[in-house]
Amino acid sequence: MSGGDTTGRVAFLGPEGTFTEEALLANPPAGGLNPFPYPSIRQVLVAVREGGADLGLVPIENSLEGSVAITLDLLAWDFDDLAVVREITHPIRHQLITRRPLELGEITKVISHPHAYGQCRSFLDAELPNVEHEAANSTADAVRTVSRVDRPWAAIGTRLAADMYECAVIRDDIEDSVENRTRFVYLAREAAAQDLDATYKTSIVCGIDQDEPGSLLLILSEFAYRHINLSKVESRPSRLALGHYIFFIDFQGRATDGPVAQTLKCLACKLPWLRVLGSYPT
Amino acid sequence: MSGGDTTGRVAFLGPEGTFTEEALLANPPAGGLNPFPYPSIRQVLVAVREGGADLGLVPIENSLEGSVAITLDLLAWDFDDLAVVREITHPIRHQLITRRPLELGEITKVISHPHAYGQCRSFLDAELPNVEHEAANSTADAVRTVSRVDRPWAAIGTRLAADMYECAVIRDDIEDSVENRTRFVYLAREAAAQDLDATYKTSIVCGIDQDEPGSLLLILSEFAYRHINLSKVESRPSRLALGHYIFFIDFQGRATDGPVAQTLKCLACKLPWLRVLGSYPT
Repeated sequence: MSGGDTTGRVAFLGPEGTFTEEALLANPPAGGLNPFPYPSIRQVLVAVREGGADLGLVPIENSLEGSVAITLDLLAWDFDDLAVVREITHPIRHQLITRRPLELGEITKVISHPHAYGQCRSFLDAELPNVEHEAANSTADAVRTVSRVDRPWAAIGTRLAADMYECAVIRDDIEDSVENRTRFVYLAREAAAQDLDATYKTSIVCGIDQDEPGSLLLILSEFAYRHINLSKVESRPSRLALGHYIFFIDFQGRATDGPVAQTLKCLACKLPWLRVLGSYPT
Repeated sequence: MSGGDTTGRVAFLGPEGTFTEEALLANPPAGGLNPFPYPSIRQVLVAVREGGADLGLVPIENSLEGSVAITLDLLAWDFDDLAVVREITHPIRHQLITRRPLELGEITKVISHPHAYGQCRSFLDAELPNVEHEAANSTADAVRTVSRVDRPWAAIGTRLAADMYECAVIRDDIEDSVENRTRFVYLAREAAAQDLDATYKTSIVCGIDQDEPGSLLLILSEFAYRHINLSKVESRPSRLALGHYIFFIDFQGRATDGPVAQTLKCLACKLPWLRVLGSYPT
């Protein structure tokens, strides 16, 4: 991409019309927005690293499905040159979408990504029992499919995709849980500019001395001692050896704040490795 | 199911021919095996609770994709009458499957669950670039589809499904990562009988006093003080209020062992709630 104008270019997990693009349009970066879909989380990160985009937007956690382990692992192991510069949280609202307005009783097939189907099970069991279900690679693919054939088929997808493919939303917000939301992070090659008025959060990942029962305790006591609130602690298997773990920790404050900086300094002395994924407004 | 013979009846996450059934057959329960597929994790747990099955087998964690949050949340909130009685770990090996033997160059479409497709991306990019991809609801559905039509289509699925639908495995183990494995748990209405010779692990979930920076520290110090090794710590959003968390913790030993029993007793005194999910051989 060298030589091209990449101003405001944002790489996001595609295809177009899925929840990542919906989150991007609802929470665009400051300045111009020039969005480009990429087919995988890894390819989004490569685009940012190699300069094809200034920012990347990828999902990191869903309230129902848990952490997106692929994003965590890529940031911990493969992309230590990228920084989290902002987080956004987007509600996941599923729409029942058809080519032209239909009654529920007319529908013969529902097309969706398996996750979307699973997240609308109560509605589907109650309103569309015994209707055939066909899988799609994404909610956007499902909407595109129903937009192309004049059959009584319905897709489960975003309002954005319904607009994009000029389809009708015949039932709003059919998801089982109103608590369904996804946290996305913006990634960049440089750490975020610091706005002293904003509230910040910092994400780190670290390794511990294995077979030391007190290792995690040691980490957490550094935070507790300085009254720093944690909002997430998650162990993940280490790639280095079976039965070894690494920890992802989110906490209040920014890496340059006095107490946080002191905590990180003390941890860096004691732990085999520690990486600050980023400090960002929340 | 009352009145029916449920001896050895095991409810598992279906459909037949997916990795959960492969794990079940590779690690069957002692005694007779009488397996029945159910369409969702919740329905597996209901079958065990209501006596339709003696045991249930569900995935709880994948090495690449992370925890199965739905399983964790159901055990924490909705099924506190069930106990984890055993854990098994099963390698996830994807096979390229066709109706009859084919050369790679003849294949015009690959059918698979989106997760399976994502986990074989290197193989597919290198060996089957530009081949159309169609989504399926499960790897087993993908194999069934290719078994039914005489077209040059390939499915990504289990060896079990290939055998079940009398198909050919034309490429073995096409997954990107040999580290890909899933941990499953067996659940029952009663805690596991304790075998004094086996090595045990215990899983708990607990709530903390929120806005207390030291709450998790307090929990972990009880374990460290008694030299009990933790193998997993994971925070999950609480259903009770936004910004509140619960913790899933796995550790060595069984709930009735002296030091573990003492730890659990001390924690129960200090925490708003704590539930032992089970002690089980590992």
